[in-house]
Amino acid sequence: MSTPREPQQERSRTTRRRLIEAAVECLGELGWSGTTVTVIARRAGVSRGAAQHHFRTREDLVTAAVEYVGEVQVAQLRRQAAELPAGESRIEPVVDMLLNLYAGPMFRAALHLWVVASADEALRATLAPLEAQVGREAHRVALELLGVDESHPGVRELVQATLDLARGLGLANLLTDDTKRRRRIVRQWARVLGTSLPEPGEGDERPTERQVTGISR
Amino acid sequence: MSTPREPQQERSRTTRRRLIEAAVECLGELGWSGTTVTVIARRAGVSRGAAQHHFRTREDLVTAAVEYVGEVQVAQLRRQAAELPAGESRIEPVVDMLLNLYAGPMFRAALHLWVVASADEALRATLAPLEAQVGREAHRVALELLGVDESHPGVRELVQATLDLARGLGLANLLTDDTKRRRRIVRQWARVLGTSLPEPGEGDERPTERQVTGISR
Repeated sequence: MSTPREPQQERSRTTRRRLIEAAVECLGELGWSGTTVTVIARRAGVSRGAAQHHFRTREDLVTAAVEYVGEVQVAQLRRQAAELPAGESRIEPVVDMLLNLYAGPMFRAALHLWVVASADEALRATLAPLEAQVGREAHRVALELLGVDESHPGVRELVQATLDLARGLGLANLLTDDTKRRRRIVRQWARVLGTSLPEPGEGDERPTERQVTGISR
Repeated sequence: MSTPREPQQERSRTTRRRLIEAAVECLGELGWSGTTVTVIARRAGVSRGAAQHHFRTREDLVTAAVEYVGEVQVAQLRRQAAELPAGESRIEPVVDMLLNLYAGPMFRAALHLWVVASADEALRATLAPLEAQVGREAHRVALELLGVDESHPGVRELVQATLDLARGLGLANLLTDDTKRRRRIVRQWARVLGTSLPEPGEGDERPTERQVTGISR
């Protein structure tokens, strides 16, 4: 695989990555109207021509940015989860990770996009399926980290609600530092999920009190 | 109280109300940058001078708009709740009301504001305490409608989580019609709260299984 072209490919990947990271920063700080290819290229230290070689329009750049944010979030979850001890004590740290997922600056960048896209048909047509895909991936990782599967009734909705709650907490962290309140909600929500979700890896052949009280229909 | 000045006061209140409603519409559709006093006045069918008699700056108008949105939401909750039957069957319809609270166009207007305020020190200084006040009022009404009080450990956090979840569901409804998924989450969340919250009006002298499993520490 080692060819003379590799260094250039490597450089090209670095440039692309730098443009995407600059796009996320610009969106978060300047909003959609301030986020042009020229502004992004300048921040990334890349010529406008080189930027346009990678991304013809800011829509292209922003699409790549949304994919990138999704990948970074999932990678961050997996990295944090790898450091946790196994067993039932995982539930609170996992809930902590999930409910902090949207408390940072990347969420602000995404919010700017969503708000603009809600009134911009073309941008929405691009973003909606992409956000759905990013959301599905976060859902899959959340299931995996909580050690549950969706064949149990109610599990899918509880995991979805956990991620929707995380986005709501991201909003609450936008104007003020909401860390303390969020920590109390994390503890309480971990208790609820501990009661409501089936034990990790638990099969239908072994229904428990937890399972019955939590997700009775 | 009937004085010759009343009709004029009445007219003045109507004008004020019309300006505020126009401000909410403009924010939702045009965002902060498109929402000027001139644009709002035109939409409200009010002269620019009359608009500025009521609100000197758009910050004043927007402050009034946030208060207005909060009041409308609380009034809507109380109106819907008044139509519900009493008793335990209330929990699912109450959760349904709460989790639909931010699914409409008013939430979009608020989002525009929050996103701009997150990068605008002056606007944030005005909005943050106001949003905190509106949030506390929503919380108070939610407690009342669920028929629980915060002296039970965990209740405050569960009710806060319910409203944070509602805002997260508002976000999820921004780019697509999320009604069906939200409905399933409502049902599941109502089950969780039914298990985790104390019975309405329940005192500490009557601890039940529900109470113990849901908010054990």
